[in-house]
Amino acid sequence: MIKIGILGYGNLGRGVEAAVKKNDDMELVAVYTRRDPGSMKINTEGVPVKSVAELDTGKEDIDVLVICGGSATDLPEMTPKYAAMYNVIDSFDTHARIPEHFANVDAAAKKAGKIGIISCGWDPGMFSISRLYATAVLPDGKDYTFWGKGVSQGHSDAVRRIEGVLDCRQYTIPVPQALDKVRSGADPTLTTREKHTRECFVVAEDGADLARIENEIKTMPNYFADYDTTVHFISAEEMKQNHSGLPHGGSVIYSGSTSEGNKHVIEYSLKLDSNPEFTGSVLIACARAAQRLNSEGASGAKTIFDLPPAYLSAKSGEELRAHLL
Amino acid sequence: MIKIGILGYGNLGRGVEAAVKKNDDMELVAVYTRRDPGSMKINTEGVPVKSVAELDTGKEDIDVLVICGGSATDLPEMTPKYAAMYNVIDSFDTHARIPEHFANVDAAAKKAGKIGIISCGWDPGMFSISRLYATAVLPDGKDYTFWGKGVSQGHSDAVRRIEGVLDCRQYTIPVPQALDKVRSGADPTLTTREKHTRECFVVAEDGADLARIENEIKTMPNYFADYDTTVHFISAEEMKQNHSGLPHGGSVIYSGSTSEGNKHVIEYSLKLDSNPEFTGSVLIACARAAQRLNSEGASGAKTIFDLPPAYLSAKSGEELRAHLL
Repeated sequence: MIKIGILGYGNLGRGVEAAVKKNDDMELVAVYTRRDPGSMKINTEGVPVKSVAELDTGKEDIDVLVICGGSATDLPEMTPKYAAMYNVIDSFDTHARIPEHFANVDAAAKKAGKIGIISCGWDPGMFSISRLYATAVLPDGKDYTFWGKGVSQGHSDAVRRIEGVLDCRQYTIPVPQALDKVRSGADPTLTTREKHTRECFVVAEDGADLARIENEIKTMPNYFADYDTTVHFISAEEMKQNHSGLPHGGSVIYSGSTSEGNKHVIEYSLKLDSNPEFTGSVLIACARAAQRLNSEGASGAKTIFDLPPAYLSAKSGEELRAHLL
Repeated sequence: MIKIGILGYGNLGRGVEAAVKKNDDMELVAVYTRRDPGSMKINTEGVPVKSVAELDTGKEDIDVLVICGGSATDLPEMTPKYAAMYNVIDSFDTHARIPEHFANVDAAAKKAGKIGIISCGWDPGMFSISRLYATAVLPDGKDYTFWGKGVSQGHSDAVRRIEGVLDCRQYTIPVPQALDKVRSGADPTLTTREKHTRECFVVAEDGADLARIENEIKTMPNYFADYDTTVHFISAEEMKQNHSGLPHGGSVIYSGSTSEGNKHVIEYSLKLDSNPEFTGSVLIACARAAQRLNSEGASGAKTIFDLPPAYLSAKSGEELRAHLL
């Protein structure tokens, strides 16, 4: 049994917990928190909630620590810190800072003889390997990534910070005509606005100036100004009833050529009922690879690009070749 | 530069040749043939066509030999034979015999300190890793593979053997309703007949008994009897004009659950203008991995399950993390 520890018990931590239950070769041994452990109840009977202070001793009996923190401030600090003590894995997704994060985790993990896998999930993660395989097989081609339809938590949070807004759920939606054009192999050049639209469901305070809120959303730089955005004002009840899930998904589409007149279109797509549970499932499959690599004597930072696909599976090489090849 | 040799110059050999031209870190050094080398003209200027007798010396200066033979009789003999002399790769696709083929190649390659990668292409190959990743990430789920719309060379050949048939092109076509059901996450149980239909374009001899031919096709065991098959009789001119390509493709669709009420659908699909050129492109990307693994000291048989995705790419780890992760 592979002993899994979870650090941080938000949406993603609970997603990892759900994933562990689906894998017979894994057991959750503890959830670690910066909050008061006594105040928390988790979804797995009989598993202790512990303080990070215990984790910090470096003596916890875990094979892989799954670090479920935010990319902005938590992971850049936590992942290198714990890679000096345990095999670790995270879902770091600030693309521009990946080289720096990789270097920090690599140094700590190598010194400790541990494995640190960074940036696992679906993007970065499954979408990244889809881009990589497509590019490697068809070097003369072009890749497109579409996100959605799904909830962007970053955009939802941005709207919630507007005065008069009580709650928001923001959906990112690929433009169907853009998808069709890319799938046809036409290699179009698409602007940000042509690729995705944004739809916001907003609960406003009683008497708030709705026109002002709508305008502030639609003109918000980086988040909305470059997109066609639709805003719907709804009640708190409707929000709870129709928008409480965290679905997401998207497509990586690649079109490439092998000779004059011969084009090929590769598409990898996801339709996810729960973004955090799927992300947690990818983390757990890659945690298996971390444990296996480390048991073979490997150390240092890795990404999903470095993991042989077979290492993500609990099945033996013989079983995989007989049933999945 | 990675030096590539091609053994066998049929459709697949020419597909590999086209793929080499698209990869700047590769060069084709020779095509080997069992035919008279003097009788052959290949599509790459300045590259020699040689007899297999030269290959059999074990002294040819190639990094990876791409073996483009048939799975029925060529590859079971050729791949172990040449794995004892060179790094080799093949597209062996007789699923039931993969364990035996793997064992034979493994023994020969290990003894010689070489790498032998078997069963590369799109199925087995890219479809196999899609099944593996999906199963590893969502162990509680079910996978479906649909082929087509595309030309099945085995089925076309089977029809050509019927008396009175001059030529045939057989298309395998997924049933749209079955695709829709699977994509919805409904986990249907589908019979062979419910998943695919078959469509044959046949050129018959003048005066042949068309009704008999049509009946022989539709009732042919294994190939057609379990499917709804449509037969069209066409002229040789129409065959040449409309059915001279070898398009193919298909989809691996996986639906899995992470908790009560949360389902996820993963789909990997291919639309290929040229089956042999795409297969050749996968072989060439995996040939790169063979060369790299061997240069690191590894030996023995491998499949695409064993290859870290990064090893298929000419780009460095830094470049991949910066641009594709």
